[in-house]
Amino acid sequence: MNLLRVNMSEHQLHWEPVPPVYDQLGGRALIARLLLEEIPPTCDALGPANKLIFAPGLLGGGGVSTAGRLSVGGKSPLTNGVKETNAGGTAGDTLPKLGIKAVVIEGQAQAGELYLLYIMADTAELLPANDLQGQGTYDTSDRLQKRFGADCTVISIGQAGEYLMTGAGIAVTGERDQRSNHAARGGLGAVMGSKGLKAIVIDKALGKSIPLVDAELFRTASRAFAQKLINDPKLGTQGSQHLYGTASIVGAVNEIGALPTRNFSTGNFEGAADLRGEHLRELILEREGKVGTRCMPGCVIACRNSYVDDVGKPIVGTLQFETIALMGSNLGLDNLDDVARLNYMCNDFGIDTIETGAALGIALEAGLAKFGDTEAILALLSQVGEGTTLGRVIGNGAVTTGRVFGIRRVPAVLGQAMPGYDPRSLKGNGVTYATSPQGADHTAGNAFGARKEVNPLGVQGQRELSLKLQIIAAMLDSTGLCLFARPPVIADPQLMVDMINGIHGWGWNKEDLDRFNRDVLRTELEFNRRAGITAADHRIPEYMCQEPLAPHNTTFDVPDSDLDAVFNTL
Amino acid sequence: MNLLRVNMSEHQLHWEPVPPVYDQLGGRALIARLLLEEIPPTCDALGPANKLIFAPGLLGGGGVSTAGRLSVGGKSPLTNGVKETNAGGTAGDTLPKLGIKAVVIEGQAQAGELYLLYIMADTAELLPANDLQGQGTYDTSDRLQKRFGADCTVISIGQAGEYLMTGAGIAVTGERDQRSNHAARGGLGAVMGSKGLKAIVIDKALGKSIPLVDAELFRTASRAFAQKLINDPKLGTQGSQHLYGTASIVGAVNEIGALPTRNFSTGNFEGAADLRGEHLRELILEREGKVGTRCMPGCVIACRNSYVDDVGKPIVGTLQFETIALMGSNLGLDNLDDVARLNYMCNDFGIDTIETGAALGIALEAGLAKFGDTEAILALLSQVGEGTTLGRVIGNGAVTTGRVFGIRRVPAVLGQAMPGYDPRSLKGNGVTYATSPQGADHTAGNAFGARKEVNPLGVQGQRELSLKLQIIAAMLDSTGLCLFARPPVIADPQLMVDMINGIHGWGWNKEDLDRFNRDVLRTELEFNRRAGITAADHRIPEYMCQEPLAPHNTTFDVPDSDLDAVFNTL
Repeated sequence: MNLLRVNMSEHQLHWEPVPPVYDQLGGRALIARLLLEEIPPTCDALGPANKLIFAPGLLGGGGVSTAGRLSVGGKSPLTNGVKETNAGGTAGDTLPKLGIKAVVIEGQAQAGELYLLYIMADTAELLPANDLQGQGTYDTSDRLQKRFGADCTVISIGQAGEYLMTGAGIAVTGERDQRSNHAARGGLGAVMGSKGLKAIVIDKALGKSIPLVDAELFRTASRAFAQKLINDPKLGTQGSQHLYGTASIVGAVNEIGALPTRNFSTGNFEGAADLRGEHLRELILEREGKVGTRCMPGCVIACRNSYVDDVGKPIVGTLQFETIALMGSNLGLDNLDDVARLNYMCNDFGIDTIETGAALGIALEAGLAKFGDTEAILALLSQVGEGTTLGRVIGNGAVTTGRVFGIRRVPAVLGQAMPGYDPRSLKGNGVTYATSPQGADHTAGNAFGARKEVNPLGVQGQRELSLKLQIIAAMLDSTGLCLFARPPVIADPQLMVDMINGIHGWGWNKEDLDRFNRDVLRTELEFNRRAGITAADHRIPEYMCQEPLAPHNTTFDVPDSDLDAVFNTL
Repeated sequence: MNLLRVNMSEHQLHWEPVPPVYDQLGGRALIARLLLEEIPPTCDALGPANKLIFAPGLLGGGGVSTAGRLSVGGKSPLTNGVKETNAGGTAGDTLPKLGIKAVVIEGQAQAGELYLLYIMADTAELLPANDLQGQGTYDTSDRLQKRFGADCTVISIGQAGEYLMTGAGIAVTGERDQRSNHAARGGLGAVMGSKGLKAIVIDKALGKSIPLVDAELFRTASRAFAQKLINDPKLGTQGSQHLYGTASIVGAVNEIGALPTRNFSTGNFEGAADLRGEHLRELILEREGKVGTRCMPGCVIACRNSYVDDVGKPIVGTLQFETIALMGSNLGLDNLDDVARLNYMCNDFGIDTIETGAALGIALEAGLAKFGDTEAILALLSQVGEGTTLGRVIGNGAVTTGRVFGIRRVPAVLGQAMPGYDPRSLKGNGVTYATSPQGADHTAGNAFGARKEVNPLGVQGQRELSLKLQIIAAMLDSTGLCLFARPPVIADPQLMVDMINGIHGWGWNKEDLDRFNRDVLRTELEFNRRAGITAADHRIPEYMCQEPLAPHNTTFDVPDSDLDAVFNTL
């Protein structure tokens, strides 16, 4: 396996055999270690010293169901700390087959110059891409697939990344015409923009496969794993997550009073019924759109949908929970068509729907438009792509928007907007937001699924729950697994150990896996410490500790001492 | 002496005898201690838990020359740390005479409500002030002096403070029609705005004086002090600082190559001759404006000017070095009339000329107008007062403007813009910016005056110099003394001890004074530590450590280890 290092300042590519320090690492784990080893922690995230890393997980390329996610990482211009964000699509499966453990983008092209990195079967090159300047991610992907082949993978930024907006993400194409996978969080699209890299094109790894050290062990474990996914009542063909996708939880999040509504001012949205996953599915089927498709080759859960308008024309795929929460209820919108249109625009501009939904919520609170006024909200969002001053403010996310308009009610931690769970009604997520080295990020340890084990309104047990979930999340993000694939590996970690040993032959046991997972967090925390991040930078916003949230009229009251103790047992 | 506590949430005023913990403190020292004792260090600076403190120095009210400055303090929304910023005018002399050691504004009025605090001889009251909403500081001061008497002091915010712009400052009126004293730095105008306090009106302390414990000791010392000021070759009636004010250094800062020019891209400005203090004086005298006036009662230096236009109509007073640097050379403007117009607008909006000049420099680099294009720059600045989206971006200062427009060359430390000395050519100031608990602030320890002792381009000795200057600055800011008054108290600290003992009878010796000064810094550093601020938050921007600055082609290269060791001997 190689690292493909691309120096944008020197226009040089370098294939480097994976150094021992990175050998037993992948995805988020590799990113964390590379940051600590190679990136000055106090560097300017949008300067030449930062690096942008594309790293498939440890199971990537092996065809394990739901394990094809691509991790993208670097120092975040939004949190100023470590950032890993991952996406579906075909890159996470293809890169390992090409023998690439990670692509590391270094340096910075001259201002105003754009390039694309073209990765072929055995080689790669940097090509000029100024012709793509100002193009959204849809057009960019279309043009590049037309040029390089319909089955290549395109990783790209839109206008938001070019403008260095700290809400910008990175789009990754999937099978066939799939365009809507995004490594969205933490502003890594701006890092890509700062490098002058508009896109990466990866040829399909035709006829290639990854070597398996113990093929038998691997196949047995990965088959058992897939079967467990299929048998899981939530994940299988009759399961809510297959049927309704991530949107399956809209109703339940609303019922527990944690659904962000009108800039996190209440946890119940009167229009939630129209945003539910059940309604989403009904509508799509009625209009002859698609449900139950997949975002990664070989995924048996297949939670993806393609949302279509009332004449059956595709708007966006996949329409997901976080987008529905942040750009639906959080903006007072109760119509999925509206949310889908906003989602399409965000995807095209290449900007995070969570960050941007939170920023728009603040803009509405500031009076720039009314909650629920679809056309006005669309007009606000369109400015992001146009790069007007207001668009640039919103594109820089929640904290910047709050500051510019003097709004104190900013739902963000460590500079990053909260996803679709108000921490006042789901306190375990509050603990994760307040302690994860990733900032406010549900994928770093989402307590929603554990709401029956630990009372989401109580303080008791949240600290322990969050740590447990953060350790599991580190494993998922380092192996390329989707969050949905959590249940079987929690129930039987040996499955994970066997799949890893089957591919890599490292002879790990469950304790090794546990140590590996914990090391990810330790490494990230150390980078953040060196970057100057302290517990004080991590606190839940003051207003959420003071203003009770309807319907439970609870504040976020997990004491700081609990937050500061989360990693005591790491 | 009393603290006057004003609770804006409850509309309550409370006169509290000074508690022992604050007794031997004043100005910046009192602010630092009060922050540490009473303000949760991680609180939202624009929320109800922050407090805004108006505190005269320890010599205030005694008629000591140049010792009438009013310190204003609180947690800064710009740096998120401790902030003290001070201004001339009459408040620093009047408050002690009314027996007030500090006015402490607490809580927060209801959103949209504005109040004014009226302080009379023996009482005070909160009055509605919604009629002043949207008024600049000039009109506010005029209206309030018309209503409460021409000789009262008015402390006010303009539109910038009302909009909660983090570049907003606080205006303080002086004798007669003097309107242009500003406690400008750190965004405390936004804190005042967040409290819903538009203005403070203070009746003149007619016939009142402060009690002197040892009148003889005090008078002897303060007379000797004034005489030394008069005898100082730079400060006396033939001295450059009396003749040309702070602008006396324009030429010399340009000559050492440290004059911020076109967003800190070079340290030499080709138009510097037209911005020099000598030219300023010539122009004002020619047009029959005023020079050699004073900003505080009893000041013998009298460095103030009243800048007039070509028909003798006053534009702004006093036009000072930092404004000339940040809004002149930094914007490519070589005409003092233009700088004076920009200065007037900033004063009227109630916004810091340093922060705003730096923000405008970034906006010009982003292409919003051309360097040197006066009318376009005036149009940009006018948007601050109008509160347009662009105006709000600029009004939030350098860091926000850089972020919104994706500009990496942002001359700021700890969130606060640098004053008029590029740290690449005056490295001692770089050390101060990078270590002072106040962030990038020349008044916290300005090495310019010591450029003949320590080579400004060298690394050697900067660390020790900065600490020495920071300790002296803490003393000046805690006693109410102007920076210009530094020479006599450095030459003979016993003078300062005698003046303090003469007023307060504390029996201090020089060691006590030294301990007092150092304690100010220790207290501030401890508050910042608790607020989560680390050395990493304090670094000089990366580009200044990489891009050489003409004409000396030097980078900022004082090693981090030197910066981190500055307070080892505190």
